[in-house]
Amino acid sequence: MPDVNVAAPPPGTPVPEARPALTAWRLLDVMSPEEQARAALVEGVLPALRAAAEHADAEGAFPRGHVELLREAGLLGLVIPREYGGLGGGLRDLAAATFAMGTACPSTALAYFFHNTSASRGLLPLEAIAAGLFADDEVPVVQAFAGKVLTRMAGGTWLANFASESAKSAGANIAIATTARPVPGGWLLDGEKSFGCATGVADTYLVTARIEGDDSPDGLAVFLVPREADGVVSRTPSPGLGMRGSANHGIRLDSVYVPADEALTLPGAFTRMLKVSRGSFVGNQLAISAVYVGAAQHVYDEALQRITTKTFADTGRPVASSPMHQVLVGEMTQQLETAYLWLRRQIDLETSEPPLRPKADEHRQWRLGKGTVCEAAFAVAVGALKSCGTSAATMDGVIGRTLRDLAMGLVMTFPAERGRLEAAQMVTSARENDLFAVVPS
Amino acid sequence: MPDVNVAAPPPGTPVPEARPALTAWRLLDVMSPEEQARAALVEGVLPALRAAAEHADAEGAFPRGHVELLREAGLLGLVIPREYGGLGGGLRDLAAATFAMGTACPSTALAYFFHNTSASRGLLPLEAIAAGLFADDEVPVVQAFAGKVLTRMAGGTWLANFASESAKSAGANIAIATTARPVPGGWLLDGEKSFGCATGVADTYLVTARIEGDDSPDGLAVFLVPREADGVVSRTPSPGLGMRGSANHGIRLDSVYVPADEALTLPGAFTRMLKVSRGSFVGNQLAISAVYVGAAQHVYDEALQRITTKTFADTGRPVASSPMHQVLVGEMTQQLETAYLWLRRQIDLETSEPPLRPKADEHRQWRLGKGTVCEAAFAVAVGALKSCGTSAATMDGVIGRTLRDLAMGLVMTFPAERGRLEAAQMVTSARENDLFAVVPS
Amino acid sequence: MPDVNVAAPPPGTPVPEARPALTAWRLLDVMSPEEQARAALVEGVLPALRAAAEHADAEGAFPRGHVELLREAGLLGLVIPREYGGLGGGLRDLAAATFAMGTACPSTALAYFFHNTSASRGLLPLEAIAAGLFADDEVPVVQAFAGKVLTRMAGGTWLANFASESAKSAGANIAIATTARPVPGGWLLDGEKSFGCATGVADTYLVTARIEGDDSPDGLAVFLVPREADGVVSRTPSPGLGMRGSANHGIRLDSVYVPADEALTLPGAFTRMLKVSRGSFVGNQLAISAVYVGAAQHVYDEALQRITTKTFADTGRPVASSPMHQVLVGEMTQQLETAYLWLRRQIDLETSEPPLRPKADEHRQWRLGKGTVCEAAFAVAVGALKSCGTSAATMDGVIGRTLRDLAMGLVMTFPAERGRLEAAQMVTSARENDLFAVVPS
Amino acid sequence: MPDVNVAAPPPGTPVPEARPALTAWRLLDVMSPEEQARAALVEGVLPALRAAAEHADAEGAFPRGHVELLREAGLLGLVIPREYGGLGGGLRDLAAATFAMGTACPSTALAYFFHNTSASRGLLPLEAIAAGLFADDEVPVVQAFAGKVLTRMAGGTWLANFASESAKSAGANIAIATTARPVPGGWLLDGEKSFGCATGVADTYLVTARIEGDDSPDGLAVFLVPREADGVVSRTPSPGLGMRGSANHGIRLDSVYVPADEALTLPGAFTRMLKVSRGSFVGNQLAISAVYVGAAQHVYDEALQRITTKTFADTGRPVASSPMHQVLVGEMTQQLETAYLWLRRQIDLETSEPPLRPKADEHRQWRLGKGTVCEAAFAVAVGALKSCGTSAATMDGVIGRTLRDLAMGLVMTFPAERGRLEAAQMVTSARENDLFAVVPS
Repeated sequence: MPDVNVAAPPPGTPVPEARPALTAWRLLDVMSPEEQARAALVEGVLPALRAAAEHADAEGAFPRGHVELLREAGLLGLVIPREYGGLGGGLRDLAAATFAMGTACPSTALAYFFHNTSASRGLLPLEAIAAGLFADDEVPVVQAFAGKVLTRMAGGTWLANFASESAKSAGANIAIATTARPVPGGWLLDGEKSFGCATGVADTYLVTARIEGDDSPDGLAVFLVPREADGVVSRTPSPGLGMRGSANHGIRLDSVYVPADEALTLPGAFTRMLKVSRGSFVGNQLAISAVYVGAAQHVYDEALQRITTKTFADTGRPVASSPMHQVLVGEMTQQLETAYLWLRRQIDLETSEPPLRPKADEHRQWRLGKGTVCEAAFAVAVGALKSCGTSAATMDGVIGRTLRDLAMGLVMTFPAERGRLEAAQMVTSARENDLFAVVPS
Repeated sequence: MPDVNVAAPPPGTPVPEARPALTAWRLLDVMSPEEQARAALVEGVLPALRAAAEHADAEGAFPRGHVELLREAGLLGLVIPREYGGLGGGLRDLAAATFAMGTACPSTALAYFFHNTSASRGLLPLEAIAAGLFADDEVPVVQAFAGKVLTRMAGGTWLANFASESAKSAGANIAIATTARPVPGGWLLDGEKSFGCATGVADTYLVTARIEGDDSPDGLAVFLVPREADGVVSRTPSPGLGMRGSANHGIRLDSVYVPADEALTLPGAFTRMLKVSRGSFVGNQLAISAVYVGAAQHVYDEALQRITTKTFADTGRPVASSPMHQVLVGEMTQQLETAYLWLRRQIDLETSEPPLRPKADEHRQWRLGKGTVCEAAFAVAVGALKSCGTSAATMDGVIGRTLRDLAMGLVMTFPAERGRLEAAQMVTSARENDLFAVVPS
Repeated sequence: MPDVNVAAPPPGTPVPEARPALTAWRLLDVMSPEEQARAALVEGVLPALRAAAEHADAEGAFPRGHVELLREAGLLGLVIPREYGGLGGGLRDLAAATFAMGTACPSTALAYFFHNTSASRGLLPLEAIAAGLFADDEVPVVQAFAGKVLTRMAGGTWLANFASESAKSAGANIAIATTARPVPGGWLLDGEKSFGCATGVADTYLVTARIEGDDSPDGLAVFLVPREADGVVSRTPSPGLGMRGSANHGIRLDSVYVPADEALTLPGAFTRMLKVSRGSFVGNQLAISAVYVGAAQHVYDEALQRITTKTFADTGRPVASSPMHQVLVGEMTQQLETAYLWLRRQIDLETSEPPLRPKADEHRQWRLGKGTVCEAAFAVAVGALKSCGTSAATMDGVIGRTLRDLAMGLVMTFPAERGRLEAAQMVTSARENDLFAVVPS
Repeated sequence: MPDVNVAAPPPGTPVPEARPALTAWRLLDVMSPEEQARAALVEGVLPALRAAAEHADAEGAFPRGHVELLREAGLLGLVIPREYGGLGGGLRDLAAATFAMGTACPSTALAYFFHNTSASRGLLPLEAIAAGLFADDEVPVVQAFAGKVLTRMAGGTWLANFASESAKSAGANIAIATTARPVPGGWLLDGEKSFGCATGVADTYLVTARIEGDDSPDGLAVFLVPREADGVVSRTPSPGLGMRGSANHGIRLDSVYVPADEALTLPGAFTRMLKVSRGSFVGNQLAISAVYVGAAQHVYDEALQRITTKTFADTGRPVASSPMHQVLVGEMTQQLETAYLWLRRQIDLETSEPPLRPKADEHRQWRLGKGTVCEAAFAVAVGALKSCGTSAATMDGVIGRTLRDLAMGLVMTFPAERGRLEAAQMVTSARENDLFAVVPS
């Protein structure tokens, strides 16, 4: 009836019933042929991930074979542009991938996510150059580093992103205490990274540090540190509650030498990168939420499977038919949908061109959305536990494991309560500023 | 970075900052030029709606001038195809319209919504014909009735849709007890319609009744009853808690005569219409939720305006800056976004071609979505009340009024608790059926 | 089995089945014979309150006859010690009374509550004297004023307590801007009281003001202002959302003269009163929560009555038996019990001798409890609305009215969100202080 | 002020500040000297429990030494009357004990709870005799069995109660499939008990079975089975999510012979016991909730300790002072109080003499209370996790462990959703019956 249905998918889009079997469809309604092709590569590794998930959780160790598995599949270059040898995917592909992996092995999905975030240290500098944020004489330096990051990732280097530290700051989400001091030909790094997936597994660590003597954000710099470099020590793993297969124990750096051309130390480079990123921090945080949504879908499916097949001894009806189970399934279904809706919205906001909404809206939405997705996903796991009862309340098995994995989502990056307060501040401060703005001069 | 961004709006879509000022943008991210043109017609009537809202609520009466206002604007034919003289809008336009009106006068938006639902009695029969659901000899009868409905609406007839009755059924959302018995040349209607917006205001009432002697759904039929027909009596208005300006008090029909050609009484016509509708019941119920979202946006704006301008006597800071207000604003913002997300999703599901998801998913989503939108909208109003304190806790004023208007949303059609249980049944029954289906023969 | 059951009611306590019919039993598990006698006086006025409630709400006016009704019943002296001519009741009696009245007419219960709070201006000074907080030469002045307050209340004077003002403070719950400046023989009051029940109805207003020139809490003083005194003007009533029969519109004081002996202006008298009060502010705030719990019980009963008697047209079963109604009833029952539990706990904390818990615990509990009771009571009303559907969604009738009355509870004094933040501050500050305390010197 | 304060603790009750240091005070406001003495015995074992908790969880094994520890302390006879050699405690003592143990080692508290529930098989028969429910010729048989149970428990026998089986019933909480068939001199038991704390640890298992050939509740009987009896096999432990040190893996019984005098097989004995029990099932279920409340208090204390001592690197202020932490602490404090309130209420309802409320109210309250306590306790653990962040998100440590322990509470016995539905049914059915009852004959 409308003259044009602007929400229409492109002509030729397959109807749901006729689509190729891809887990990613559950998240994305439509995918381009290229996106489908990349999603198919992801789909190919899911069986191996799923098979190893239980053991990885039990051992609390990253399944070593997964590095080779993902490298062979070409997936280490998923979001690297084709001109650098990658698959040319974007944020949509990344979310689709971490979501799909999240249904199989959330730990691997999480570690893979952090590898991919390293790409932003190549992509954002290039965007910042395009946006004219670097001076002519800076451009070659930035281009060289960006190209190095992207080319290596596309070439099969697992490049783990190590940012978090144990110090907490009242004013910022992340406080960087690791320092770099100049020495002939390069830098010496000292510090401790408290959380970093693929510790002891990644080929190279991407380390954020601040140049000694510069306490401003302009002093932030990034360094490529080989896993086996002198002075790099893996911290002792603590027995994580969940996401136990992601090897997130982090490293200590004791006077680790990094050659100058393995770093981007240009003053202000980091902050200029942030200027061109969209929505969520350095621009792809939503893909971490996709891990949780994938895990929530998996635990939901497991619970439904159990309660629709197990029957009451007296009536022979599925336990799912009991009034209590109907209430629980209704709640779980709503929570699961809630998680999808906020995630899809964030994807749309951060990938649409031209932007659907002003940048401030993207930022605020992410503050709300991260927590909402994680709370909803965790609620699905709790509902699954209640639905299935004591027999599912085990360490192993999908339900107990996913409950623990999703509990991690409640605390990683920031809890929902913090996100809401930050969104409130954005909303009310903007209003206050608006008011000042209309005061006639 | 992706090869093609399938979520991309059509080329030439204006960026947010450059869009014409339309309230509908808050709901829809992108609109076609035709949609924008129709939304502009709606925008034009908002000031008059807003100006009359307070009085309409206080009096508990539909502002009579609004019929002429909307007729003049051509808006009575909003969703009528151009070939019948209408504006050619679709469900997206309807939702955008009721949303925008909801920000100005939820009662008018609600009544307008019900007028537009009458169009489904013209549009769905035509779709059912196209789908081959009517026999050749039935087609002319159906076409004639459909054309009559559509032409009249486009021509400026307010055609109020009267379906609900006071009897409650354990098995169905709506129980029809009104009967039609054949008399020479037509039918005599007897019954009572307990809820119908624009009672005493609409030009014509669209009345659903069942043919005497046929208790099956096939016996449902629709009749066009002039407001002033003999035997039509407006029920005594009860003092509604909210939506008080929608004149929803309903009618009694005492042996009301309707000529045969002012009715669609073909056995099974009604049920065949339902077969081609999408998502929500007869296919446009989501637009009633849009009313609530519009109202929630309005009460949110009002609260933010108040608390960012009112200041503490001691510190001079806006009251919005207090820790309690920051918590409340965070919650309200999240609830408001939740309402938008579920509504937008339902719009996408029901308007995309080809469909994004199987029809069963659309149906289930609506079961969840209706309640979620209404609960979230009501929560925004409660948050607004808490934010603004006792001085806003009045019958008049945006906050007290919207709280009452949105309380109606909790009970209209069905509460969230019912929707979740119905969704649970769909989910678990489908699973049970799935299981049976895989049993090898 | 235990050696002694310390929770046991006194010997001779009637078992539930054998108790006299008193609404107050729903709140209090056991009552002394004297408490029962006082509760019986309250019970006697409930029919009249119930009969007038609908009209009071519709008119937005306090039923004038109620003053005489309560005076005749001796209830204006409920909490006044016998030696001053009162009934000798305490906080338990007050809560039982406002609870019982809340089941009949929340507005009257609210106004009656505020009358009784005036007694604290007589009782707390006496307690402060007993605690040695006043010097010998101050004692007679304080005793005289206290005796005047108590004797008058016991004698049938409705003494409305006017504290709140429209100014908001970031640092305090109540900001007093009304001033008293000395003139020969007394004081001149100027200011505006934004909220005070029984405006234009009470015989005398108890007005809190600050002595001109003293901005410290020590400058707070209380004055007895006759309703018809020169310069006292009732503010224009605003159309309240709920509690519409409590005449809470407040007054303006324009140079109102008050003789010296009709005031307690001793520096620091007010703050010394606060020192001996327990739990909630000036020691009886919990009785305002009892109003809400009474109202919640009433709306719960009304909803249960409706849904267990109305039947489905098709099955003949009560609508209460539908799955949705079972869910709603379960939620409502839990919310109602929650309201009772927090209220009963606060009563126990504030009336037990010796105290069950340290005073800081009583304070913190009230911060949490006030909001929890109000949220739970409001949730019961929302559940009642959902249970009964559109036919109950009217301005009049118990359900619509109680929903509005209980919405007032969300904002009066302070919302739940504020109470929780204040409790958090108490908890964490005490912990911080604890830590400092253990640092060895 | 009141004539008599009926809530007053007995004269001589110590004020909070002057009480002996007992964890149980946090739950019970007042304790008799005898109760205090028993609580002191419990207090004495807490350090050992606390010291072993971490290891027990890690190993997933009951700390063997605890049997001897509790036996030495005389605590195996806590609720056994003095005339049978016990400590003479009652339900209040039991709740106080499991609560206190819950703050130290929830697993041990849980296992200890189940030991104590065995006493009901001695106590309830005696009460049923006193209530005249047994015929004269039955009394000696019943007395003999009851005396045996009580004497052995008092004498230091750990008597684990094994009721649950893996079959689920639509109509009942527990379905018994284990059978007893008569053989000369005794019975042969066959079946499988899916959940029973102290499996392989307890000296004797109390096994509920049904007499072969009698499918009615009258056929239920109880048997004393030595741990090492022929045919008793411990099931393989599954790796529980929480409560991992309670050895709850259960047993299989393969033709286990039990002498006639080690059983109570009198037809209808079991159902007559239920008739005299109060509140919760067989009358002491609330003490299992006390375990969860104790655990919640412990995780709350741990979180507060962490966030008030850890400081922000930039400001030096405790992290507890951040707005997000204030929100979380407010929520946690409210949830913790909620858990206490429901538990204390249930204790009062089930221990007061004469009863505070009719028995039906006790039952309904328990249906609501069990779930509310568990949900609230779990919410405290989730809040603790969020407050403390990723560094606390470990398997070991109080926070991760308690989160897992309390997750078990969500599913044990029945989830909150089931309890609410059952309460709703009680409420609405009673109302329906009420209505029928008033129909005049």
